[in-house]
Amino acid sequence: MSEQWLPSLVTPTPQEGFDLAVKLSRMAVKLTQPSAEVRDALRGGYAHDASDLIAASHVVATHFQTIAAANGYWRTDRG
Amino acid sequence: MSEQWLPSLVTPTPQEGFDLAVKLSRMAVKLTQPSAEVRDALRGGYAHDASDLIAASHVVATHFQTIAAANGYWRTDRG
Amino acid sequence: MSEQWLPSLVTPTPQEGFDLAVKLSRMAVKLTQPSAEVRDALRGGYAHDASDLIAASHVVATHFQTIAAANGYWRTDRG
Amino acid sequence: MSEQWLPSLVTPTPQEGFDLAVKLSRMAVKLTQPSAEVRDALRGGYAHDASDLIAASHVVATHFQTIAAANGYWRTDRG
Amino acid sequence: MSEQWLPSLVTPTPQEGFDLAVKLSRMAVKLTQPSAEVRDALRGGYAHDASDLIAASHVVATHFQTIAAANGYWRTDRG
Amino acid sequence: MSEQWLPSLVTPTPQEGFDLAVKLSRMAVKLTQPSAEVRDALRGGYAHDASDLIAASHVVATHFQTIAAANGYWRTDRG
Repeated sequence: MSEQWLPSLVTPTPQEGFDLAVKLSRMAVKLTQPSAEVRDALRGGYAHDASDLIAASHVVATHFQTIAAANGYWRTDRG
Repeated sequence: MSEQWLPSLVTPTPQEGFDLAVKLSRMAVKLTQPSAEVRDALRGGYAHDASDLIAASHVVATHFQTIAAANGYWRTDRG
Repeated sequence: MSEQWLPSLVTPTPQEGFDLAVKLSRMAVKLTQPSAEVRDALRGGYAHDASDLIAASHVVATHFQTIAAANGYWRTDRG
Repeated sequence: MSEQWLPSLVTPTPQEGFDLAVKLSRMAVKLTQPSAEVRDALRGGYAHDASDLIAASHVVATHFQTIAAANGYWRTDRG
Repeated sequence: MSEQWLPSLVTPTPQEGFDLAVKLSRMAVKLTQPSAEVRDALRGGYAHDASDLIAASHVVATHFQTIAAANGYWRTDRG
Repeated sequence: MSEQWLPSLVTPTPQEGFDLAVKLSRMAVKLTQPSAEVRDALRGGYAHDASDLIAASHVVATHFQTIAAANGYWRTDRG
């Protein structure tokens, strides 16, 4: 995978950081299962499986910890 | 999802931080399963499944770690 | 849920911090499944299921990390 | 549970910190399932279930993170 | 396993850090199941199992936390 | 278990730190299931179960976080 998809962990806002966390979660899946067709088929399944959705949400939470720390928790951006 | 839903990780109190952790947990699910109808149907199921409830509680715990750190653990707010 | 149940993460001792971690674990469940009756029924089940008990213990461990950090690990309180 | 069982997170050595992590893992289970008889019966089962043993090991790892941080990673104790 | 495969946690970019996280996730599997043949057979299975893919993605997220911290979150490398 | 098996979390290299993380993962299992015979039988099973292998890899990742932090991420050892 030679394309550049992660130039930085820095995002302007917490919300964009959350979106990046979702992206990282999916990218790890992509590196294990490179077929978009297979992934789409699987997503159709786990999007209707509560346990899988919760587990996916946990992965996002773990990446969001990393990204939030990388951004100093956006502390100057007190909304 | 263009609406702004996460302007800041800073909350006045630990309890509001906990509520935000619950919100982040649900938002990650929403980004994977955008249909409110499907999510409501699933919630009806996992709200009666102990394993799912515990797993959902774990996601909240992970987000709460992030939010607590972002708020310096609300240390000046010694209740 | 308007009542105040989490005024602070600071506790006098590690043991009270551990009790608070247990409380936070249960509160996240409560926010997902508000019915005390249903929760009591589920607890009767998972209290006899090893996998659920271990998973619940993991959630407590995650919250205890947060609370221990919030208290500076109670380092002045060397027992 | 009024007895004092966790006076401090500080331990003289990493190994004693690891033992304390095991103790914390079990204590969270104890607080959910207070009956020693039931717990012993469950342990007989999960001690022969690989998935449960791995999950229990994960809880220990999480507590050990907390305890290691509390002890400054025992860095002066370079073995 | 005497060959050297992990000389450093430092990587030039976040993306190479992410690749390293994937490598660490697989290496832990390799140390438990040394047979490449068995691992390949298993990968054929879990690459089509949504729960396993999500769980594998979680392991990557945990390693990425470590690697990102090791690199100071690549903060000078604001893309 | 009176023998000394964990004198320090400090290791000369990241790779030796990773090996130590694997050792800690197994030690927690050993403390729950002391019979080497039973553990060997279980390992024969979970070494062929993708979900168990991934879960075991997650435990290693958690311990590796601790050990990497204990070693200051081996930052002077830029390979």
